[in-house]
Amino acid sequence: MARAAHERAFSPPQQPQSPDISDALSARLFATRGLSLELAAPLSAEDMAAQAMEDASPTKWHLAHVTWFFETFVLKPHLPGYRLFDEAFNFCFNSYYEAMGARQPRPARGLLTRPSAARVMDYRAHVDEALERLAERGFETGSDLARLIEIGINHEQQHQELLLSDILALFAVNPLRPAYREGRARTSLSAVGEPSETCGSAAAGWISYDGGLVKIGHAGNGYAWDNESPRHDALVRPFRLADRLVTNGEWLDFMGDGGYRTASVWLADGWAKVNAAGWRAPRYWEEHGNGWHMMTLDGLLPLETAAPVCHVSYYEADAFARWAGFRLPTEFEWELAGATLPVEGNTLGTRALRPVPAGARGEASPRQMFGDVWEWTQSAYLPYPGYRPPEGAIGEYNGKFMVSQQVLRGASCATPDGHSRATYRNFFYPHQRWQFAGVRLAAEVS
Amino acid sequence: MARAAHERAFSPPQQPQSPDISDALSARLFATRGLSLELAAPLSAEDMAAQAMEDASPTKWHLAHVTWFFETFVLKPHLPGYRLFDEAFNFCFNSYYEAMGARQPRPARGLLTRPSAARVMDYRAHVDEALERLAERGFETGSDLARLIEIGINHEQQHQELLLSDILALFAVNPLRPAYREGRARTSLSAVGEPSETCGSAAAGWISYDGGLVKIGHAGNGYAWDNESPRHDALVRPFRLADRLVTNGEWLDFMGDGGYRTASVWLADGWAKVNAAGWRAPRYWEEHGNGWHMMTLDGLLPLETAAPVCHVSYYEADAFARWAGFRLPTEFEWELAGATLPVEGNTLGTRALRPVPAGARGEASPRQMFGDVWEWTQSAYLPYPGYRPPEGAIGEYNGKFMVSQQVLRGASCATPDGHSRATYRNFFYPHQRWQFAGVRLAAEVS
Amino acid sequence: MARAAHERAFSPPQQPQSPDISDALSARLFATRGLSLELAAPLSAEDMAAQAMEDASPTKWHLAHVTWFFETFVLKPHLPGYRLFDEAFNFCFNSYYEAMGARQPRPARGLLTRPSAARVMDYRAHVDEALERLAERGFETGSDLARLIEIGINHEQQHQELLLSDILALFAVNPLRPAYREGRARTSLSAVGEPSETCGSAAAGWISYDGGLVKIGHAGNGYAWDNESPRHDALVRPFRLADRLVTNGEWLDFMGDGGYRTASVWLADGWAKVNAAGWRAPRYWEEHGNGWHMMTLDGLLPLETAAPVCHVSYYEADAFARWAGFRLPTEFEWELAGATLPVEGNTLGTRALRPVPAGARGEASPRQMFGDVWEWTQSAYLPYPGYRPPEGAIGEYNGKFMVSQQVLRGASCATPDGHSRATYRNFFYPHQRWQFAGVRLAAEVS
Amino acid sequence: MARAAHERAFSPPQQPQSPDISDALSARLFATRGLSLELAAPLSAEDMAAQAMEDASPTKWHLAHVTWFFETFVLKPHLPGYRLFDEAFNFCFNSYYEAMGARQPRPARGLLTRPSAARVMDYRAHVDEALERLAERGFETGSDLARLIEIGINHEQQHQELLLSDILALFAVNPLRPAYREGRARTSLSAVGEPSETCGSAAAGWISYDGGLVKIGHAGNGYAWDNESPRHDALVRPFRLADRLVTNGEWLDFMGDGGYRTASVWLADGWAKVNAAGWRAPRYWEEHGNGWHMMTLDGLLPLETAAPVCHVSYYEADAFARWAGFRLPTEFEWELAGATLPVEGNTLGTRALRPVPAGARGEASPRQMFGDVWEWTQSAYLPYPGYRPPEGAIGEYNGKFMVSQQVLRGASCATPDGHSRATYRNFFYPHQRWQFAGVRLAAEVS
Repeated sequence: MARAAHERAFSPPQQPQSPDISDALSARLFATRGLSLELAAPLSAEDMAAQAMEDASPTKWHLAHVTWFFETFVLKPHLPGYRLFDEAFNFCFNSYYEAMGARQPRPARGLLTRPSAARVMDYRAHVDEALERLAERGFETGSDLARLIEIGINHEQQHQELLLSDILALFAVNPLRPAYREGRARTSLSAVGEPSETCGSAAAGWISYDGGLVKIGHAGNGYAWDNESPRHDALVRPFRLADRLVTNGEWLDFMGDGGYRTASVWLADGWAKVNAAGWRAPRYWEEHGNGWHMMTLDGLLPLETAAPVCHVSYYEADAFARWAGFRLPTEFEWELAGATLPVEGNTLGTRALRPVPAGARGEASPRQMFGDVWEWTQSAYLPYPGYRPPEGAIGEYNGKFMVSQQVLRGASCATPDGHSRATYRNFFYPHQRWQFAGVRLAAEVS
Repeated sequence: MARAAHERAFSPPQQPQSPDISDALSARLFATRGLSLELAAPLSAEDMAAQAMEDASPTKWHLAHVTWFFETFVLKPHLPGYRLFDEAFNFCFNSYYEAMGARQPRPARGLLTRPSAARVMDYRAHVDEALERLAERGFETGSDLARLIEIGINHEQQHQELLLSDILALFAVNPLRPAYREGRARTSLSAVGEPSETCGSAAAGWISYDGGLVKIGHAGNGYAWDNESPRHDALVRPFRLADRLVTNGEWLDFMGDGGYRTASVWLADGWAKVNAAGWRAPRYWEEHGNGWHMMTLDGLLPLETAAPVCHVSYYEADAFARWAGFRLPTEFEWELAGATLPVEGNTLGTRALRPVPAGARGEASPRQMFGDVWEWTQSAYLPYPGYRPPEGAIGEYNGKFMVSQQVLRGASCATPDGHSRATYRNFFYPHQRWQFAGVRLAAEVS
Repeated sequence: MARAAHERAFSPPQQPQSPDISDALSARLFATRGLSLELAAPLSAEDMAAQAMEDASPTKWHLAHVTWFFETFVLKPHLPGYRLFDEAFNFCFNSYYEAMGARQPRPARGLLTRPSAARVMDYRAHVDEALERLAERGFETGSDLARLIEIGINHEQQHQELLLSDILALFAVNPLRPAYREGRARTSLSAVGEPSETCGSAAAGWISYDGGLVKIGHAGNGYAWDNESPRHDALVRPFRLADRLVTNGEWLDFMGDGGYRTASVWLADGWAKVNAAGWRAPRYWEEHGNGWHMMTLDGLLPLETAAPVCHVSYYEADAFARWAGFRLPTEFEWELAGATLPVEGNTLGTRALRPVPAGARGEASPRQMFGDVWEWTQSAYLPYPGYRPPEGAIGEYNGKFMVSQQVLRGASCATPDGHSRATYRNFFYPHQRWQFAGVRLAAEVS
Repeated sequence: MARAAHERAFSPPQQPQSPDISDALSARLFATRGLSLELAAPLSAEDMAAQAMEDASPTKWHLAHVTWFFETFVLKPHLPGYRLFDEAFNFCFNSYYEAMGARQPRPARGLLTRPSAARVMDYRAHVDEALERLAERGFETGSDLARLIEIGINHEQQHQELLLSDILALFAVNPLRPAYREGRARTSLSAVGEPSETCGSAAAGWISYDGGLVKIGHAGNGYAWDNESPRHDALVRPFRLADRLVTNGEWLDFMGDGGYRTASVWLADGWAKVNAAGWRAPRYWEEHGNGWHMMTLDGLLPLETAAPVCHVSYYEADAFARWAGFRLPTEFEWELAGATLPVEGNTLGTRALRPVPAGARGEASPRQMFGDVWEWTQSAYLPYPGYRPPEGAIGEYNGKFMVSQQVLRGASCATPDGHSRATYRNFFYPHQRWQFAGVRLAAEVS
């Protein structure tokens, strides 16, 4: 889902307009490949093989699938003499590319105890070694090959975020509630940069925007997914945006006010889901004798009231907003606000691995826009005017999901650094909760 | 779903701006009430009690539910001394108004053999008699009461269309394939007004539109649903619209070209549905030894190639458009085109009860815009900027469905006359096929 | 399900060994045909068309199916020149006879609003008229035709019981809780013959039996189903049988003692079902402010503590017996006890239409053996040694259900008179509760 | 499921009546514990963690559960000062003992990536060490402790068979079709002892039995499960039994004759299942270009026509028998025949790990009775007369499954040696196919 761009790490010095871009691209390629291994390092082979639920995939599958992507779309067509690691892997690790043939059914990915994690690591090494050979020749800026490498990097970054979401989903149903990461002091985290625990619980402020006829979509420099194009004019009415995310403490107020039992604040589909699934709190919240806790990648922790609420569905985000007397932003409003801000925040690079309270309020700009949690918008995930998916199997992606899903904007604490930008469009079904997704409120100008 | 407005039947002479509007409103009220009985007349009590599937409702339920609506929202609060017909009916015939209490579960509506159809008819007579008493006092223009009467009329009109869709669904699974309407010559129908059978099979033409900053939404005179407001500016790029609907003959081409077996033209959700449900043609199409037939309200008829395709899902509409090299229109494009046209076509008033071939091509304006079939758009069903649902139970409607559905525009052969306008927003889930829904193509300006 | 025998109505005077048996057989044939109409008389066409659940069938379907049976197996082969009423009925009203071709899917029987109830009545009249012509020639004793007539009678009797069970299931989910039969004083009923309300609540007595090598199965005089044969020796150990059925009062004790929440008394499958379905009382029991009630064919009545418990599954019957420190009888024990008793009790003929308290205890013989409720046994429904199903479509019945079901013995308040005998084997799945089924306890000899 | 007995390994010399039985019991205890490790040895930690389907369990779970059994029922009550390995394991590795508290839901056993396989091995070592301390004091014959040790051994043996069945189910859905055991020559296997490949394909012979009043059930010396008691008289009619199992070749004949498409040979439930699940061959059969193959613990092998058919459901076994003009034996017939035979055959000890062709026909006794495949009988799994489950949690087993299942007799190629006897009652649901289960025909005496 999430996919990315001309990020901080890829700022002007590393992105010269010379034809010799290949070094930076190579560096990013292998840094990305390495990060996947780092993320998998705390996990056992068993952890890597299990599939928490149909929406999720095993770590091993993620590691192999992104590798299969490089093998299939980069090495096979572009590295003469490349030897396929294993013919059978096309069946095992294709995800949904219909054009690339039959594949392991998604709900049965957790049954792939073979190939082993060790063999998947061999697969990665085999492919990395071939990528290194390819890189030695350099990637010419603007070439098809450079474009494919870039796609492969961004694709792997998306799966890095999913890997973390999926591991959390797995450990959250384990009766031992294991921590993905051990040895981390289980204390409250405060905002990156400017710790200020009390700030988070202060009332949110509002930033006003004039709107108007604005440019939406990716401008063309740096990487972007196809669904961020074409850049086009859009009309945005004046609006206000909360200057921080909705917090766990505010969510407790919603719950305390009977939010999960009040039909009138819910969409009809949401109300049906609440009742069918028995939702009464965000996913991963657990009430114990000593209060509410939340399952995190550091294990089960007491709920931090000042931290942003996370792991809520669109239905819940929308109901909360209605209960609070506000609404969710549209994706255009969000992009307009985000376009002027530095792309920085609590993303994977901070290694917080969970959303943290907002830092001190500064000037009139919203906090927590890039990082902490993806932000549900009231915009359905649809093509931009004039959108055309790329040709071929590689284009078999963003376009085919353009129905019944909602757009999320920003980035989360599990989003790899360099994989965020104001035009980025993430998308999930309105009932899904296992992602690091939360809520920012919007309102009309009063 | 479908709901309606200041329509032809409700044109200036019947809608003076004087305070004495009540006569016209009364006339429309009782005409509408009478039409429901006319539509039910060919059906037996057994037919009226059965529920074809969970999406559908029994005729009897429709007849009683719209009556319950008048009783609950009009008579109880506005007719002093009104005696409830039967306390138990609130449970039986409430649909989804959470604010109005518990109700019969939707999937079990077909088990309501009691109250009987005869008693439901008594219920209607009881309520109509009370409405007549109320009407004697006159409905003051602009009053709350006039507004409620108007809502009740439009609400009943929506159910009239559903009644026909649901009866077709019921008869289509009956091994006898009964005709809703007997004695009608089962010959091909041509376009209303100007019969011209050959025209329908001629290639569609294209109408170009400049777009620009246009007004979208209801202007405020005449009836409209809340979801058509607020009227607001929208930016529409230049586009082209097909001057007629996609035909059955063109759909046969799609099928013949393997359309239902070609993953690349489908949305991912659509492809999953095609395979899970085994779709290989529109709903109600049946292949017999002597070719394709289609189940209609006149029974099983040979497929008319020149008639518009009907009973297709959004998934199919979208796949067809992609296969054909075009796309579906947005709802704004549709509205822009429709706003300049007379609201007329093959709606319920023609009593064709199925879509008919397009008439002769005239000037540069699209044909079949209001009538024949609802037209799937690529727009998700979302609130307009600044939308607020009305307060109270009566507002518990359009707003709560604003997720995961697609907008359809126009009207169908089952839409009551006077229930159409260019701003009308109908909506269904992308997999639903039992409505009279079809396809009009759009394209960028080349 | 239930099927029938050498019953009271078919006792020696009516069953001479002369070749001229045809009069009695004719009389029984038309009495049975008439009884079906009588049972359907209180129902509207709507009531007759609805299917309460997948296990049940619409009244109209029962009425037509038994008629189809006579048409297919009796009239077509045996009445020269017989004209089929309607070719399509073979599809509509075949139940499961694979040999007789395709048929309406069982779960969609409630969608058969056509043919109408009126037309089904015409069908019955058409077939009855033909049966009368056939009867005029007389049915020769022992002939194939007489055998088929006998099967048809017994088959229709089975469906008469199902008709009542299915109507009760339908009315029990109707929010109006309609009474099948109006105008009946809703007072407690006492035992047929000897009213004695207090007796029912007295402790049950025990009858001891020596067991030994006993004859089991039908002896060959009078009608019996194939599954009652061959008659064979069986070894039965000494046992005791309760002299009356378990009562509602005793069931309240079980519930009060946490019976539905105590895993240790349940079979594993039963415990899973209790939790999945949320069972906490017998089907049709409802707790209201003023105590427990029970839905019956006379509508919702206060629970009679002295009446036999009814509408319980095998799982519940077995759990109750274990909780009480006893067990269910085997079908052989039951037959041994029943073989010596007159076949009489609270069956359909009494028109009580629900189980009634046991009469006064008499000599050392069990009460309520034939009537009130079918009695679950701990015997699985399996073939007797040497069992062979009859050849042809007509034999496609009892044999094909011989797996996963339990045998019930006796008869119920909905069993037609003349359709009971000690060797009769009824059978249902262990989770089914909509039949008139209850519990008699058994024990080892202490 | 499978459970065990006074087997060869436990014959008189090893079973003196002296009070000093403990040595033999200890030896068997640790041999059994060791065999589990041997069976798991070829598997990776990933293999051990996955759950092929809801009916199956992960290897790791089996290894831990049987260990939990010893810890809970033997060590906690009988070894003073025993330290629980991990409190949380009671939740993780309890199976269904309601009396022992809450537990991991069965369908989610495959999500237990923690505790790791390594930690489960530590658990085993911890418990084994404690068992050794306990064993040093000796197990007094006839003591409660000796009885519990015996149960624990037999319980672990059952899970050894399940471990193999479940691993086969897992590897059969892996696209790589891995072999559980590598390096084994993939040649045809012939009967244990007397190789004779042609014999297997010769027509089966028939052995006749007189029947009569026979003793059924366990006689009391050696171990047996509660469900084999009480030993009691049963009446068995004269019958014949096939002298070998039905072969794959014969099953191909059944398939070739349209067996899976012929409704008349199937039980109604079986026919529904065949159609719903799309069965057209036994589980694990695959048709490839070069003919039928079968997935085995040695990987995918060409089908051996002379080997016994395996992995068929009761429905299929019953349908085959009817198609062939015979029937399945009752469990009493089987026991009568088996009681006179030596308990030997192709069980786990041969390490064939799949059924093999019958050896040469010898004297008039059936071959392949103990080993190769469990044999479906036409007997439902029910209590013997006078059966009472043991008190307490330990008795929460065989009795609670006595509904809706069928008895299988004999033993399979995956049954541990020493875990078979003529009175052994295995049981499964009639649709289950993943066990090593096959067919032996029976018939009346002609």
